[in-house]
Amino acid sequence: MTAVLVLGGARSGKSQYSERLVAETGRRKVYLATSEIWDDEMADRVAKHRIQRGDDWDLIEEPLDLTGVLEKHCDAKSSILVDCLTLWLTNLMMAEKDVNEASADVVSSLLRLPKEAHVCFVSNEVGQGIVPADKMSRDFRDHAGRLHQSLAAVCDEVWFVTAGLPQKLK
Amino acid sequence: MTAVLVLGGARSGKSQYSERLVAETGRRKVYLATSEIWDDEMADRVAKHRIQRGDDWDLIEEPLDLTGVLEKHCDAKSSILVDCLTLWLTNLMMAEKDVNEASADVVSSLLRLPKEAHVCFVSNEVGQGIVPADKMSRDFRDHAGRLHQSLAAVCDEVWFVTAGLPQKLK
Amino acid sequence: MTAVLVLGGARSGKSQYSERLVAETGRRKVYLATSEIWDDEMADRVAKHRIQRGDDWDLIEEPLDLTGVLEKHCDAKSSILVDCLTLWLTNLMMAEKDVNEASADVVSSLLRLPKEAHVCFVSNEVGQGIVPADKMSRDFRDHAGRLHQSLAAVCDEVWFVTAGLPQKLK
Repeated sequence: MTAVLVLGGARSGKSQYSERLVAETGRRKVYLATSEIWDDEMADRVAKHRIQRGDDWDLIEEPLDLTGVLEKHCDAKSSILVDCLTLWLTNLMMAEKDVNEASADVVSSLLRLPKEAHVCFVSNEVGQGIVPADKMSRDFRDHAGRLHQSLAAVCDEVWFVTAGLPQKLK
Repeated sequence: MTAVLVLGGARSGKSQYSERLVAETGRRKVYLATSEIWDDEMADRVAKHRIQRGDDWDLIEEPLDLTGVLEKHCDAKSSILVDCLTLWLTNLMMAEKDVNEASADVVSSLLRLPKEAHVCFVSNEVGQGIVPADKMSRDFRDHAGRLHQSLAAVCDEVWFVTAGLPQKLK
Repeated sequence: MTAVLVLGGARSGKSQYSERLVAETGRRKVYLATSEIWDDEMADRVAKHRIQRGDDWDLIEEPLDLTGVLEKHCDAKSSILVDCLTLWLTNLMMAEKDVNEASADVVSSLLRLPKEAHVCFVSNEVGQGIVPADKMSRDFRDHAGRLHQSLAAVCDEVWFVTAGLPQKLK
């Protein structure tokens, strides 16, 4: 298994950079969208992302069972782009799942994937602003920070994108 | 045209670093302040910045028409410090201007500047905290992220300043 | 005096990285906790940190008088981990102290420490999100940014930790 983690702030260009990394593998491009469409604003964001990345992607939509999708679709011919982990964490919290358990599951399932698998995770850096006033936001950024740490530890490469410019952290 | 983009968080030292970059050109130093003074707190911040950078700067105050100022004042003898883009975006939003159009205008006008021009843009990184609850703040950080990406693509150098320490991103 | 500053967002792994830096000195490990326990959430965080770092640390709890503790406990045999500066700033603000004065005091007392002293400061990056709506949060991030800048200027090393991965800024 080869895994890459691409972090960045809002509108940092992290998705486009990840799409480029996946395209450069020369494999079948699989886009795993974790977004659930709650409102018009979200629908608009999703539509814009779709136009931006082009038509030559296979689309899988899965808001919760990331482990299941990875185990089913990872193979030597595909590269899977998981976009994005922070939305997935939001979905887990909204569905009142055990987020720590689900996060640990993803990390351990990653290590069980076939050697030829290729996965690229996109996620938002959300922990570099002021401490949020509400408990749910604080929990959310704790979950995100913990997941980023444990994923980064097992990923082959970790990138941080700012203003469209990638920095290699690992 | 030589253009530099200096990004950083609040009180990161990005303005001081930009002032140093402009001073090092040995050119006439022009300070383009985009701030509009809404209240005492803002007046206080502006006054402190003024004292910090010293008296040997020509000052231009322009909250909206960035393109016009750049076209009028850029020449082979001056270096213009635009401080800062995030305030300029705020001004555009308050004045209900088309922010995407204005951002695209700045980028394209930059490419039309004379070869000898030297411009340094300062801007706040605002997209690495929790997703803001209100739509206007989300729009704002989307505008900032998009502008940073498109400017970074045409700038010769991009820096990120943390705790007064510059990192070169490009 | 050897001083190190370790910055990072929430749950970035900055504390663990700092603990490693202190352990690598081979000196007596002193943990200076600045946290005041306001509620159960804070108590929980503190307890988790304690378990994580293990039992072989001497613990000093001091919410306000950082300068006093550094002057008293720094010696050639110890390495002191100050965790963390952002909580210390919060305590100063809650106690209505002069934060600028206290910050300047810490920096200047650091320069007066014996040559053999070893100190590692941990602090949160809080200035890379949207501008906070409330004045107290804006003041807080201004204080944090200013303190980080002035400390970074006198520290021997400055690190920024993201997803558990340290980047050397200085």
